Amino acid sequence: MATLDILHGLTQDDFNAETLGENKFANPLNLPDAYMMSIGKRVLFQNIIVDEKKIEGKELFSFERPGPFRKIFFDPTKINVGIVTCGGLCPGLNNVIRSITYDCLDGYKVKNVYGFKNGFEGLTSEYSQEALRLSADMVNSIHEQGGTILGTSRGAQTEVDMVDTLVKFNISILFVIGGDGTHHGSQKIAEEIKRRNLKISIIGIPKTIDNDILFIHKTFGFDTAVEEARKAISAAHVEAKGARNGIGLVKLMGRHSGFIALHATLASGSVNVCLIPEEEDFSLENLFERIEKRFTKSDHLVVVVAEGVGQDFLNKSIEKKYDASGNIVLQDIGIFLKKEISKHLESKKFPHTIKYIDPSYMIRSTSANAIDSSFCLRLGTYAVHAGMAGRTNVLIGYWNQHYCLVPIPLALRQRKQVNINGAEWRSVLEITVPKQK
Amino acid sequence: MATLDILHGLTQDDFNAETLGENKFANPLNLPDAYMMSIGKRVLFQNIIVDEKKIEGKELFSFERPGPFRKIFFDPTKINVGIVTCGGLCPGLNNVIRSITYDCLDGYKVKNVYGFKNGFEGLTSEYSQEALRLSADMVNSIHEQGGTILGTSRGAQTEVDMVDTLVKFNISILFVIGGDGTHHGSQKIAEEIKRRNLKISIIGIPKTIDNDILFIHKTFGFDTAVEEARKAISAAHVEAKGARNGIGLVKLMGRHSGFIALHATLASGSVNVCLIPEEEDFSLENLFERIEKRFTKSDHLVVVVAEGVGQDFLNKSIEKKYDASGNIVLQDIGIFLKKEISKHLESKKFPHTIKYIDPSYMIRSTSANAIDSSFCLRLGTYAVHAGMAGRTNVLIGYWNQHYCLVPIPLALRQRKQVNINGAEWRSVLEITVPKQK
Amino acid sequence: MATLDILHGLTQDDFNAETLGENKFANPLNLPDAYMMSIGKRVLFQNIIVDEKKIEGKELFSFERPGPFRKIFFDPTKINVGIVTCGGLCPGLNNVIRSITYDCLDGYKVKNVYGFKNGFEGLTSEYSQEALRLSADMVNSIHEQGGTILGTSRGAQTEVDMVDTLVKFNISILFVIGGDGTHHGSQKIAEEIKRRNLKISIIGIPKTIDNDILFIHKTFGFDTAVEEARKAISAAHVEAKGARNGIGLVKLMGRHSGFIALHATLASGSVNVCLIPEEEDFSLENLFERIEKRFTKSDHLVVVVAEGVGQDFLNKSIEKKYDASGNIVLQDIGIFLKKEISKHLESKKFPHTIKYIDPSYMIRSTSANAIDSSFCLRLGTYAVHAGMAGRTNVLIGYWNQHYCLVPIPLALRQRKQVNINGAEWRSVLEITVPKQK
Amino acid sequence: MATLDILHGLTQDDFNAETLGENKFANPLNLPDAYMMSIGKRVLFQNIIVDEKKIEGKELFSFERPGPFRKIFFDPTKINVGIVTCGGLCPGLNNVIRSITYDCLDGYKVKNVYGFKNGFEGLTSEYSQEALRLSADMVNSIHEQGGTILGTSRGAQTEVDMVDTLVKFNISILFVIGGDGTHHGSQKIAEEIKRRNLKISIIGIPKTIDNDILFIHKTFGFDTAVEEARKAISAAHVEAKGARNGIGLVKLMGRHSGFIALHATLASGSVNVCLIPEEEDFSLENLFERIEKRFTKSDHLVVVVAEGVGQDFLNKSIEKKYDASGNIVLQDIGIFLKKEISKHLESKKFPHTIKYIDPSYMIRSTSANAIDSSFCLRLGTYAVHAGMAGRTNVLIGYWNQHYCLVPIPLALRQRKQVNINGAEWRSVLEITVPKQK
Repeated sequence: MATLDILHGLTQDDFNAETLGENKFANPLNLPDAYMMSIGKRVLFQNIIVDEKKIEGKELFSFERPGPFRKIFFDPTKINVGIVTCGGLCPGLNNVIRSITYDCLDGYKVKNVYGFKNGFEGLTSEYSQEALRLSADMVNSIHEQGGTILGTSRGAQTEVDMVDTLVKFNISILFVIGGDGTHHGSQKIAEEIKRRNLKISIIGIPKTIDNDILFIHKTFGFDTAVEEARKAISAAHVEAKGARNGIGLVKLMGRHSGFIALHATLASGSVNVCLIPEEEDFSLENLFERIEKRFTKSDHLVVVVAEGVGQDFLNKSIEKKYDASGNIVLQDIGIFLKKEISKHLESKKFPHTIKYIDPSYMIRSTSANAIDSSFCLRLGTYAVHAGMAGRTNVLIGYWNQHYCLVPIPLALRQRKQVNINGAEWRSVLEITVPKQK
Repeated sequence: MATLDILHGLTQDDFNAETLGENKFANPLNLPDAYMMSIGKRVLFQNIIVDEKKIEGKELFSFERPGPFRKIFFDPTKINVGIVTCGGLCPGLNNVIRSITYDCLDGYKVKNVYGFKNGFEGLTSEYSQEALRLSADMVNSIHEQGGTILGTSRGAQTEVDMVDTLVKFNISILFVIGGDGTHHGSQKIAEEIKRRNLKISIIGIPKTIDNDILFIHKTFGFDTAVEEARKAISAAHVEAKGARNGIGLVKLMGRHSGFIALHATLASGSVNVCLIPEEEDFSLENLFERIEKRFTKSDHLVVVVAEGVGQDFLNKSIEKKYDASGNIVLQDIGIFLKKEISKHLESKKFPHTIKYIDPSYMIRSTSANAIDSSFCLRLGTYAVHAGMAGRTNVLIGYWNQHYCLVPIPLALRQRKQVNINGAEWRSVLEITVPKQK
Repeated sequence: MATLDILHGLTQDDFNAETLGENKFANPLNLPDAYMMSIGKRVLFQNIIVDEKKIEGKELFSFERPGPFRKIFFDPTKINVGIVTCGGLCPGLNNVIRSITYDCLDGYKVKNVYGFKNGFEGLTSEYSQEALRLSADMVNSIHEQGGTILGTSRGAQTEVDMVDTLVKFNISILFVIGGDGTHHGSQKIAEEIKRRNLKISIIGIPKTIDNDILFIHKTFGFDTAVEEARKAISAAHVEAKGARNGIGLVKLMGRHSGFIALHATLASGSVNVCLIPEEEDFSLENLFERIEKRFTKSDHLVVVVAEGVGQDFLNKSIEKKYDASGNIVLQDIGIFLKKEISKHLESKKFPHTIKYIDPSYMIRSTSANAIDSSFCLRLGTYAVHAGMAGRTNVLIGYWNQHYCLVPIPLALRQRKQVNINGAEWRSVLEITVPKQK
Repeated sequence: MATLDILHGLTQDDFNAETLGENKFANPLNLPDAYMMSIGKRVLFQNIIVDEKKIEGKELFSFERPGPFRKIFFDPTKINVGIVTCGGLCPGLNNVIRSITYDCLDGYKVKNVYGFKNGFEGLTSEYSQEALRLSADMVNSIHEQGGTILGTSRGAQTEVDMVDTLVKFNISILFVIGGDGTHHGSQKIAEEIKRRNLKISIIGIPKTIDNDILFIHKTFGFDTAVEEARKAISAAHVEAKGARNGIGLVKLMGRHSGFIALHATLASGSVNVCLIPEEEDFSLENLFERIEKRFTKSDHLVVVVAEGVGQDFLNKSIEKKYDASGNIVLQDIGIFLKKEISKHLESKKFPHTIKYIDPSYMIRSTSANAIDSSFCLRLGTYAVHAGMAGRTNVLIGYWNQHYCLVPIPLALRQRKQVNINGAEWRSVLEITVPKQK
């Protein structure tokens, strides 16, 4: 949007909201201070600036924007490129594969697009011969299917072996679609390439259904995941309402970051308790108190729990209970909560029914919804532009309403998590049963 | 997200992408200069700053953020509030009504929430007695339905009459959900309130399925609309493939702004020609050339046209054709194109089949998808917080990844449109049949 | 189901419902006599009998059942088969193609399965070279897509030319998927084959989204069509409720038979007036009376009209109105009703809003729902079994809960229509605004 | 359909399929004799006959048809009726409640419609005061929601207590929506009513998502369940294809009858092994052999298992394994198979990934699809007509394409199951990996 001409003659006053007068009444909302507003925190209007600068001594940082350059690093008609999908399934994988393939073949006219099979495993000498030579026909309608036509896997391979494969296939750009674990691998591959002084670009497309990669506002597949998660919550809600003191319990994805649980809770409007890993003080007692409080006002209850909740707690309680086993099998928080809630309510002679839903595989295997599809198409295109321009060891990010290039080492510094004192979590608190003191 | 601690020790170098070397090959993409990248345009990392400042002499502007304050302007337990929905249907209207009602009744404990019926008409002395007194029970499951339980209408009422109604109902905050036409009305109401020196807050929630309101990155219902639009395109694609030289033609919403057509095109991956109002040089000849070019390479074709395309052209050609009639009935661009394309191909003795789809009412009457639902819930909450804090004559916006308060006069300065030289439109150009010179 | 052992020792008494006593109160339902029950009409329990017989002088007829025989007419490994899809799109076409192809190649190991392109046109000498040689890979996932990979067309080709093509391709069984028009063609092809004394089997699979083929209880795609039609009605309902005296008008498929309109009306529960071609006395005056009656009790209205309604009426009124033009263009009943209803209500100074939805292409291009998919798979299999067994000039029917073989000449004797005095239509009358006397 | 006039002049010859000649080639299909056709089994054309008769000494039975009579047993304006929903959730419950309520209040003008809460429990003296007095407004849009607004429960109450409640509420007709367990209860209530010589009608609406009630061709909610089950299979298929030697395992409902597994298998086209309870010789060895056979030809596998499969087997193996515990907890066949398949493939050093999906609650809590909605509406209407006509102790059935009255004692004689030697199961065998000898 060309907004510059609109700004002509404006001053900050034009950006300030009109107000009726002085605020003097106490807010009846029962929220901790952390969630209350203070004057002064404002949202910047401009979102693109030239070069890095400081404001009031505070340093400003910026990301490079990807896109097609007039001059590019590779001679596209002479090169091969490779694609690999790693980690768990996520809606949109096939869309990204399709977008990269089309843009390379139809746009840049590259010689060959190789799809390596089943994650980094497909880049090893053992499995590299399985690689597919992708054509436009092969990828034409794959975006209508969930999953990935390339297959995927988890786990580590040596970067030496994988770079050998890149050399063997004469790959100039490798597109790696995966999560933070994967991109630790991407970084190692990029480092090995540098060590050997090769001209191979490593372009990462961040893929995490949990939306937990830093500096990327929202990852592809996330909206689709929330849509499917809402269906599971809706089922739990129907089950809960269909029985005397019915309880619906839904476990959602989110090992370390509760974004899916949070947004599915906001989207459904039917959740009474939402548990995410970022809330560190998980306790059964507190959960039981909230459940009991809900049942004083209603005859049904829906609980959403992210899979990463209470792992410390769980490990401890399992050790105490089952002890001595030698090899500890991680217990499922959903199944655990189902048992504990039942046990507790039975001990209170409280008649109830509890239904547990684990929709994870049905969520992640879905095909991408429309906005995710549009997003994936553009991620793929930008990845190709970035690779052609010789960028390497970077992810295609989306930040401040713009696609951007995020250096992999920067993105891996930390995991993105729900700010437990922030506005999104406040919204959850406003519509669920509050924690007891 | 509390990113400040992560930034410790970083420099701009950490934000710069690694590069393999100098770019020296010509880019084979056949794109105008406007779409090519130049070094220097970068994406700001930070998105919130304190107070307005300048960078290199360029003024920075910022919006106020909404949220709950410790001290508020109204004594909530003593006030009535009103809600009104105006203009065309849009997915999410009921979600916003539900969110405002819940937050006012359960959160702020206001005395009464009145829902005025059928848009501004419901604020006139003639119809105000139809207003509903909303309760939590009444709105409990309305977010699962499309449309608006309050009804809606278009058209103007006098602000004097409407403010009289606000006074009569003892309204302290009026929530107006509507598009730019509506908020011209909101602004007039706010001005009349000021003239009478009343303490009534006017809070607007921007509603436009076309996503054409300035300074609001994406309006509610837009993602849902794109999802439904994609279904229509998919139907057109199936029809096109099911016949010798089949043509699928879809008209989508977008009087002045082609965002739905644009994103549905990117989402579907099956569109060959996408026409939006922002491209000003619409001509049938050019369209025919693109159609013929497509048929040299394929046996089917999908065309998407936004409803506002070619209105000037249409008015002219209709005048010439039907002349003299006195009252000109605006012709439908979709039906017009269907006829003209058929006529042209018949004149060329080119056997073909054309199927025309107009899904508009099926799109706008859908219930909100998950992400839009989550978005609507939060828009409603922020609207309530803003009203309680005495803000007035403002819209709840979403900008740079944050909710913000946008003064209505600022938002109405101009209409948001697709930047025809920007990256989004470039993505469309990359996947459709290029315009002929 | 092996029910014979269950029947041991039963008498008709076991099949008679218990009753509380004599019926002596008048039924308050305001229904014509035709719709009232009389004792004696009963539902036969048994559904398969051996050979034709008489009961009380009334002749009983029966259809042959299809399935695999130990001995078959063709040596499957030595033959080619052909598939052709004709007429309009219908959900499930690709499922039937896939089922036939798989069963021929994997089950019966036939040499070649040819898919002729674009309906009977693909069987002409002009276009037969376009035929595809289908493989399991090619059809593997086509059942997830709407439409037909073979394309389709309407219109007549000479049977001489088409049988020449069958001979040229050495086809032993031709599977023809189409409606009654198509199967007039199938019959002619079968007759020409007989005339030449060829050994080619013509097996028809009835395809009519209108469900209007005689002796076939329900055609494939019908359930899916009703599902999609319900969505359009739901949109019309939302639009109607969203405006003062809102009217939603939906045109559904059904040239001569109103089954889709009927079942979509029952499925939605939101329709107030349902118009089908089988009701012969269509008049605008009667429609207006029903509309006015509805508005005395409610503030919104939904009208469903099948496309074949009022064609006689329409032709007459159009002649009167536009006269003299030479070539009469058939007017659309939906658009016509929209105008006439508006005109009438305006003449009565009755404020209202009317929204018209024509979802036809979006309905017929959908992929088959689950039950239709299961049905199509079995239709395809039975078609192959019937062809292998040397049956010809037959359709695969479904009657009395069993698949059966229906001779094409029998099926074409008349069109299946809604029994306007039957129980299904009575159900519509019970939930809509009654016609005025 | 008034077919009688069409039949004029027809003979059985018109119903016989044309044939090309003698069958003399061996059928290559590898199917047991039970599945092969023999001449002579035919499908009766007529489906309604008058009174019971014999054909060739074989007795014919028939069911009474429900519908509105001119004279009815009750004076509707003077009576109360009751509705109760029992057992597990099933798509369509709310549709039936809505249909009965509307027909009683709007059609027959009964005084009161009581909805008893949470199954038969709501008919006890302890809980009967929770009963809701249903109005048209209360049920207006409930058919768009899954579950039941009345709640449900399992388990037995004494018929004496329940009939006391009916008397107390002055109920003349009780509509009981439930499965075979429930209708054992209905029968006992009817018997107790008879014992007391009361004039209360008990009308059952068969509700079983497993479709396992005798003499009812298809129960409501079944088509919807198959639709949702197909989604789970689709997810399993995507997961299976997304990994090296991926296995997707889906457990579907079906304690004693495998209809959902069967039809979801036919609908999906992606299942390689389908296990249902009717196949009695379940063994792990046989399953392993089929899995291994599949992997010789493909790199992925989908297994569907009905929940009732292998219970004998499971009980035995669990006893052997965990023994001594006193109280045997029934193990889940899905989880059991997941473990055993993994263990087996690991013992063979066969690399693989297995994903297990249990979609049961998400299936049964869905709202009814269109055809089920239409079906439920009519079931409800017929139930009301039957009750008004003084019928009692009957179910509303659907047989030979007609609604009919099935005496409850007859329906309870046996459970409906998949005919393991029938045509439906043959279709499954034709598309899955055959069992090894």
